[in-house]
Amino acid sequence: MAIPAALSTIAYSANRPLSNSTPFSSSHKAKRLLCCASLSNFVGSSEAAGVCLSVGTHLIPHPDKVEKGGEDAFFVSSHRGGVIAVADGVSGWAEKDVNPALFSRELIAHASSLVEDEEVNYEPRSLIRKAHAATTSIGSATAVVAMLERNGILKLANVGDCGVRIIRKGQIVFSTSPQEHYFDCPYQLSSEAVGQTFLDATVMSVEVMEEDMVVMGSDGLFDNVYDKEILSVMDSYDSVADAVVCM
Amino acid sequence: MAIPAALSTIAYSANRPLSNSTPFSSSHKAKRLLCCASLSNFVGSSEAAGVCLSVGTHLIPHPDKVEKGGEDAFFVSSHRGGVIAVADGVSGWAEKDVNPALFSRELIAHASSLVEDEEVNYEPRSLIRKAHAATTSIGSATAVVAMLERNGILKLANVGDCGVRIIRKGQIVFSTSPQEHYFDCPYQLSSEAVGQTFLDATVMSVEVMEEDMVVMGSDGLFDNVYDKEILSVMDSYDSVADAVVCM
Repeated sequence: MAIPAALSTIAYSANRPLSNSTPFSSSHKAKRLLCCASLSNFVGSSEAAGVCLSVGTHLIPHPDKVEKGGEDAFFVSSHRGGVIAVADGVSGWAEKDVNPALFSRELIAHASSLVEDEEVNYEPRSLIRKAHAATTSIGSATAVVAMLERNGILKLANVGDCGVRIIRKGQIVFSTSPQEHYFDCPYQLSSEAVGQTFLDATVMSVEVMEEDMVVMGSDGLFDNVYDKEILSVMDSYDSVADAVVCM
Repeated sequence: MAIPAALSTIAYSANRPLSNSTPFSSSHKAKRLLCCASLSNFVGSSEAAGVCLSVGTHLIPHPDKVEKGGEDAFFVSSHRGGVIAVADGVSGWAEKDVNPALFSRELIAHASSLVEDEEVNYEPRSLIRKAHAATTSIGSATAVVAMLERNGILKLANVGDCGVRIIRKGQIVFSTSPQEHYFDCPYQLSSEAVGQTFLDATVMSVEVMEEDMVVMGSDGLFDNVYDKEILSVMDSYDSVADAVVCM
């Protein structure tokens, strides 16, 4: 599996510095994707005031998968407080001559287009439900979605072994826990009936505050980079855009 | 530090099988405290329907602190979906001839009496705020509070290195992360101005479901019992009351 990492800082802002709902996948020509928004103070109406995400992203495909671009996909959106999502195509499909990246890329593309959908109602689990239902590719993927409300509530839904860390004042104050059937067989959204669904998502929320940092990635990130190394990198750079390249 | 552990299963019930707001502390005569409520189905009004906690508790003081009963305190309550809380007195106060247990016991006693307070509004952070404000003992303590809404939302506030694990279908789907200034110096509610307050709490919520298990304890539990051992013990017993004794 590849190592996609989406890192965010929380900032007070009413700006929407990112183009809405920007999907990226490992098929993107650049192997190192960066998307960074600068911090800014509130300038809008009181309705739009509050915290928002400033996002930097980076993707390193597994060395064996560089040619095909890896099996992961992610998107960021500036809708409301900001949305980040990662999906990780399950490698086992390659044994059945199915490109494991197709499912995760399509899932993320649908999630990206559905992020402002009324029925999704800005709920991460609902976004997973609708994006999964819309995906027609054969395959399966783990997925995690984080949606920030401007009042500082970060809402999360996680299926499988993607992960999220929230860093506050130099320490990790929140971590997701991976869901696995057994070693190296994560819970997964699938084209097959035997897979998991939005109903299997772990659904959580965390109160975040200005200057918190959110690190999101597939298992490839957290299997290869210890939490203390993540903290060290994040502490060494002023912006998430710089830090994410060095993760 | 001692090893208090409060283990809960989530059950659909409208019963309130525990006496409301029952405080325990390590000064209790029994070194092994158990408090277990049986599971039951909904029998009340629709307003009261939903999930509730069935709790088992157990406390093992540190071998050096058995005579004084340890420095930890906890309480359970059947208010609404159920409340569990643990506080851990910071040992360093003994060097200043202050009994480290006094602060944690008083904090928990206040929390226990305030759990239905209108101003607390069934918010864990508010309970920490009011209990801390009411505590007059010299000392400091880490603390974690979990409050279950009957709709399945488990609300958590954590200051320091107490911890919570949520187990679903044999795996940990949620863990708190400890807050520390540096090794063995946790964030702590204190009688001194240099300490932390409710504002430093990590505030989270998790959607739980029937048959989930909640394990709460001080750092003494999680420092001495690996997560895989917690899972093994919880898997081996039919009731939390039995499991908690063997943790």
